[in-house]
Amino acid sequence: MRKVYIDYNATTPVRDEVKKAIINDLEIFGNASSMHSSGRLARSKIEKARSEIAALIHAKTESIIFTSGGSEANNMVFNSMHKIIDSNDFQNRDVILTTAIEHPCVLNSALNLKASGYKVNVLPVDEYGKLKIDELEKALNDKTLFVSVMAANNEIGTVQDIKKIAALVKNAGAFIHTDAVQAAGKIPLNAEDLGVDYLTVSAHKIYGPKGVGALYVKKGAPVFPMVHGGHQEEGLRAGTYNNTGIFGFGEAARLAAEEVQKYGKEITPLRDKLKNKLSEKIPNIKINGHTADVLPNTLNVSFPGAEGEAILLSMDMEGIEASTGSACASGNLEPSHVLMAAGLGPEMAHGSIRFSLGWGITETDIDYIIDVLPPIIARLRAMSTF
Amino acid sequence: MRKVYIDYNATTPVRDEVKKAIINDLEIFGNASSMHSSGRLARSKIEKARSEIAALIHAKTESIIFTSGGSEANNMVFNSMHKIIDSNDFQNRDVILTTAIEHPCVLNSALNLKASGYKVNVLPVDEYGKLKIDELEKALNDKTLFVSVMAANNEIGTVQDIKKIAALVKNAGAFIHTDAVQAAGKIPLNAEDLGVDYLTVSAHKIYGPKGVGALYVKKGAPVFPMVHGGHQEEGLRAGTYNNTGIFGFGEAARLAAEEVQKYGKEITPLRDKLKNKLSEKIPNIKINGHTADVLPNTLNVSFPGAEGEAILLSMDMEGIEASTGSACASGNLEPSHVLMAAGLGPEMAHGSIRFSLGWGITETDIDYIIDVLPPIIARLRAMSTF
Repeated sequence: MRKVYIDYNATTPVRDEVKKAIINDLEIFGNASSMHSSGRLARSKIEKARSEIAALIHAKTESIIFTSGGSEANNMVFNSMHKIIDSNDFQNRDVILTTAIEHPCVLNSALNLKASGYKVNVLPVDEYGKLKIDELEKALNDKTLFVSVMAANNEIGTVQDIKKIAALVKNAGAFIHTDAVQAAGKIPLNAEDLGVDYLTVSAHKIYGPKGVGALYVKKGAPVFPMVHGGHQEEGLRAGTYNNTGIFGFGEAARLAAEEVQKYGKEITPLRDKLKNKLSEKIPNIKINGHTADVLPNTLNVSFPGAEGEAILLSMDMEGIEASTGSACASGNLEPSHVLMAAGLGPEMAHGSIRFSLGWGITETDIDYIIDVLPPIIARLRAMSTF
Repeated sequence: MRKVYIDYNATTPVRDEVKKAIINDLEIFGNASSMHSSGRLARSKIEKARSEIAALIHAKTESIIFTSGGSEANNMVFNSMHKIIDSNDFQNRDVILTTAIEHPCVLNSALNLKASGYKVNVLPVDEYGKLKIDELEKALNDKTLFVSVMAANNEIGTVQDIKKIAALVKNAGAFIHTDAVQAAGKIPLNAEDLGVDYLTVSAHKIYGPKGVGALYVKKGAPVFPMVHGGHQEEGLRAGTYNNTGIFGFGEAARLAAEEVQKYGKEITPLRDKLKNKLSEKIPNIKINGHTADVLPNTLNVSFPGAEGEAILLSMDMEGIEASTGSACASGNLEPSHVLMAAGLGPEMAHGSIRFSLGWGITETDIDYIIDVLPPIIARLRAMSTF
């Protein structure tokens, strides 16, 4: 049976070059904090990786803090905001703004701060998943401490105007964070040009290993440790360096930076073919998300009358692996908070599938999906009318 | 030049069986939270690894929470203690006890809680690094919330009587945590028999990959997330599963459990030979730590009249890689807090070297150190008398 993995927003396979780097460097096991040769060798490779990650987002190398992944990096920003309230400069600012379509690690970090007495204001998005800028402008004032808006959404791929958003937030004297986990490697990113204070990236979304991510912190932006202990990362993130993970992340970042234009050029037509053919061959479907401001690889489709999990399992039996939304929210029977925020009713939201393409997806794979999916939808719709 | 890595308490090389497991399993890239086949395959391998780690510490599989390492696991326990204060049952308990020789991630987590208003009482150890049980008994009362005592020390190898300590702590109605990062794989560990509420282990100290660890939480002991987000680990630790790290950890744990008796039997005589020969060939040295209650692999020696970093660098030039203490404290010019707590003066503490053996160290390696080190110490001592 043909196997088509089309769930690259959930995670990506480790690409061959990264595998090679990981396998080669498994011998470089020294503790990067050790003074001896093995330690210094590990440390120099870690610093090289740091510079690759900085280059991917056009940042200064010293602005990069390694974490165990995107979730930890996002949590670290919220944790830092929790700590700066003690500072005199910010004691009158206790409002946090974010959007209704953020990843659970941002929304749950915000809820955690709410439990500590902060005010959290979750801003709405329009039907395409774009943050309503006028709502942001209305909400921003001298009580705003911090704003977190994702660069691109994981479920529908909508890309936000982070540069514009950051300018508004900085003008209000607040801090701005963007979760760029889904944007990195798919669209060009320039942290300094965007004007953000914090930006999150993760290795396993760009064909690197799982369990490693990074937080960009603009020089001067407040940041506090969440994991306390040794002096790693200038005392900001304790714990023995994850050599293998970081070396692999470095190589993945280097390739992602090199190939970001090619990615858009090659992936977009495949995604668009899938979109057009599904629209052609399956009646009454709805494409979710923005048509222009969207990641090149993401296609979210509602199939009213069919249930998302049933579609997923039926496709899986034919070797096609997609998702109903965020892997981090799976097992959760609630309809997608992203699709609901974009105005879909629960029935439409429940009948939605995210296809997320990546390196390795071929025209033949797309043709296979176009062959296999229409009869699945027809069968499930027929069943639901019994 | 011969290369002798004898710094296994800082970190261990990834052993061949684990390398093989990692390389084989690099293909298993699915997001373990995804519903499709690739996700389910990853999930089943993660659960298999969880059971291997549980077996290493004789715990129930469901008591294991994966983290990004020992530091995060230790921090997570302190973070949980911070959160339970809100509960009615514990609001009168605000004292945390720990020892003067804990790893920086425990001591700094305790300081972090102190900054939040908890009382932290750092208990003394005797000249061999053993917690003074009578001091613990005196300190325990109905104000004690939580006690953290490491199972075995990273710098001097002293093993604590955790079973006895846990019984005293539980009798006082408090929670007990042990950082078993250095003990795991070196001496048998049985979390349930020890009677602890929390126990920390890390993969990279048992010939597994870096960037992954685990926290054992006894059924019923309070635990709260530190990294908020997806529903991974029953909502207790968000973030995409670190497949490669966890698979490698599982294999390392399986082997460590299988070989723990052999480890003691084979490593102890090599360590003792090094100890005896250095004592014989270098005048006026002091062996630090306990003679009986000590890890099989750890030897901490003071060479008064020579400076630790100078010894380290001289050995490194001869291919011998050891350390002056914790890698997590290196770069820090303060004398070792562990040796100071055991009563050494700053000069003695500054002139100390930790040799930590492991699989791969041979009799020939030990002979090499015994040949190379005496003239180094003689030369450095002669220089310091100028």
